[in-house]
Amino acid sequence: MSPYLSLSRRLRVTPFSRRVDAAGVQAYTVYNHMRLPTMFQSAEEDCRHLKQKVQIWDVACERQVEIVGPDAKRLMRMLTPRDLESMDVGQCRYIPVVDERGGMLNDPVALKLADDRYWISLADSDLLLWVKGLAIGARFDVDVNEPDVSPLAVQGPQSDTLMARIFGDAVRDIRFFRFGVFEYAGRELRIARSGYSKQGGFEIYVEGSDLGEPIWDALFAAGIDLDVRAGGPNIIERVESGLLSYGNDMTRENSPFECGLGKFCDLDTAETSIGRDALLRERDQGPLRMIRSLAIEGPALPPCAGEWPVVADGVRIGQITSAAWSPDFETNVAIGMIDRSHWHDGNQVIVETIEGARSAVVREKSFN
Amino acid sequence: MSPYLSLSRRLRVTPFSRRVDAAGVQAYTVYNHMRLPTMFQSAEEDCRHLKQKVQIWDVACERQVEIVGPDAKRLMRMLTPRDLESMDVGQCRYIPVVDERGGMLNDPVALKLADDRYWISLADSDLLLWVKGLAIGARFDVDVNEPDVSPLAVQGPQSDTLMARIFGDAVRDIRFFRFGVFEYAGRELRIARSGYSKQGGFEIYVEGSDLGEPIWDALFAAGIDLDVRAGGPNIIERVESGLLSYGNDMTRENSPFECGLGKFCDLDTAETSIGRDALLRERDQGPLRMIRSLAIEGPALPPCAGEWPVVADGVRIGQITSAAWSPDFETNVAIGMIDRSHWHDGNQVIVETIEGARSAVVREKSFN
Repeated sequence: MSPYLSLSRRLRVTPFSRRVDAAGVQAYTVYNHMRLPTMFQSAEEDCRHLKQKVQIWDVACERQVEIVGPDAKRLMRMLTPRDLESMDVGQCRYIPVVDERGGMLNDPVALKLADDRYWISLADSDLLLWVKGLAIGARFDVDVNEPDVSPLAVQGPQSDTLMARIFGDAVRDIRFFRFGVFEYAGRELRIARSGYSKQGGFEIYVEGSDLGEPIWDALFAAGIDLDVRAGGPNIIERVESGLLSYGNDMTRENSPFECGLGKFCDLDTAETSIGRDALLRERDQGPLRMIRSLAIEGPALPPCAGEWPVVADGVRIGQITSAAWSPDFETNVAIGMIDRSHWHDGNQVIVETIEGARSAVVREKSFN
Repeated sequence: MSPYLSLSRRLRVTPFSRRVDAAGVQAYTVYNHMRLPTMFQSAEEDCRHLKQKVQIWDVACERQVEIVGPDAKRLMRMLTPRDLESMDVGQCRYIPVVDERGGMLNDPVALKLADDRYWISLADSDLLLWVKGLAIGARFDVDVNEPDVSPLAVQGPQSDTLMARIFGDAVRDIRFFRFGVFEYAGRELRIARSGYSKQGGFEIYVEGSDLGEPIWDALFAAGIDLDVRAGGPNIIERVESGLLSYGNDMTRENSPFECGLGKFCDLDTAETSIGRDALLRERDQGPLRMIRSLAIEGPALPPCAGEWPVVADGVRIGQITSAAWSPDFETNVAIGMIDRSHWHDGNQVIVETIEGARSAVVREKSFN
């Protein structure tokens, strides 16, 4: 049985929290010191609905780091090995952010608002402190802050239909990982085609907490016939889709190469990016382990709340870091870090789950 | 009713988690991406026991930032306006850490291990990223990391008795906010007279996760006749004692002066500390609001999970950020930020609690 969560102001409410409560949230996790709803009916039912209909997710916990000023671009180049030269205003890019040893500090999505203004939409770490510390230490001419911006995700196959009813048919034209500016109640909002599922959808960057409930209410009022429901990042769909979670599937111990993010490390042009030397070294020798999807055999396992060792021939060769029973694939789907010796597609391994040893098969691709 | 907490690897287990589970933990909070037990029997019963006996607290979530190297002292001077010149090896100091605008980033306890080596025992924010960012940006010659150190607190009036049985009578001689080095199982451990209650006790800086369960078990085996129990920071005792909680009672929006930490801002000697200019300005004009204890009248209120506005003459003059029913003081004890106009001892105000408006009295001192 899950323990209770002791609520306090430190686990920040969001502009949508009252509506989330009213929608019958059962469980939360904590993410960037904020409440992130994880379950409404059950993981299975929430997943089934997400894949067929449309859901509204309070992902305000994806806090933004805003970097603005003459040195904004220079600071961005320092933050990530990914090349941002060709990035347009209106574009989103998934960027690994690493420390001086090449260890992952966050895997956010960067949005370019103007040539001298970026938002970094965060995974779960206080990257604001890293960016501010660097900027102050290096005396960069930028302002770094956390604006009053709270993403609200609209996810699922009926997302376009629902969004068009509120924001007009122009939302249908937003391309993947691009954002447009739309008007709502006389205010301008950025809306991106993005989100933490593979079921399609948008993220509305709700700027101004006062707009949270009006937009939530408008989406629900417009979506009654679509059976719109409140949801959240779903453990089953996420693992099926191979979507990584910072803190779960990777930590500061891991490099971007280990996380399968080598394609986002443009080391030849990233002369000023932090961690470049360490990453060049690893690029040359190749990573020693890598993130993989796995199918764990046998009956449904409980969620992986820590690490489950992966062994082969009695030797530990990795660990499972996320897992869930998938009704659609009729197996336990999992994500883990697997040593080079065993990371190839189809390899048989043993997972020491909380319910004992189970056979498992390594996959080079995710399920979805 | 409290919601459930969805456990995952991202909410890190501690070296003591299995023992905490076995001891019947009912609720957690999340602190520095780690599980912090908040309740075993009930807040009231846990509090009563803490004040009479001795408890073992898993406070591994008080993660350490280790700063070591030739520039360690220079970096520490940059981090805090508090003067550390007179700090001895073996001493602990409560230090405000602020950003360039004087906003609180954390209120940790610093430990001086050697002239070129410090630990910063954290409240809830990733200060590691701030310290690393500054050090890299300013090209300081230091190493900054999070060592495998997990504090285990022993709190309550029987703490000395219990600790002496394990570590010898020398622990009785540790002065408040000092630490000594003690041997356990052939390893050296730092033990400080400190902790997040006013009931007395120690914090054992358990260095090496493998030592977690042996030390936990030794303390419980030695304390049977003392009725030793598992516990955690207790909301009732904490608020009675006026112990502040970063993220609850103060945030980056607040200055040290507002938090009553002006006495730790040695601005005349802190020439190189970040935020000094902003703090000098506030020192001259005085803070506009300050943290206060309050007694809220009427029957027991539920815990404050967000902010309760404080009003006087129909105008908002502050907010409650922590509250609990105190069986000992037979009132609702609270902590809040109150405007200068109403922060004086004995002032009558109205608190808009989750259960409606209540009369309350401002106190310049805490209850305990």
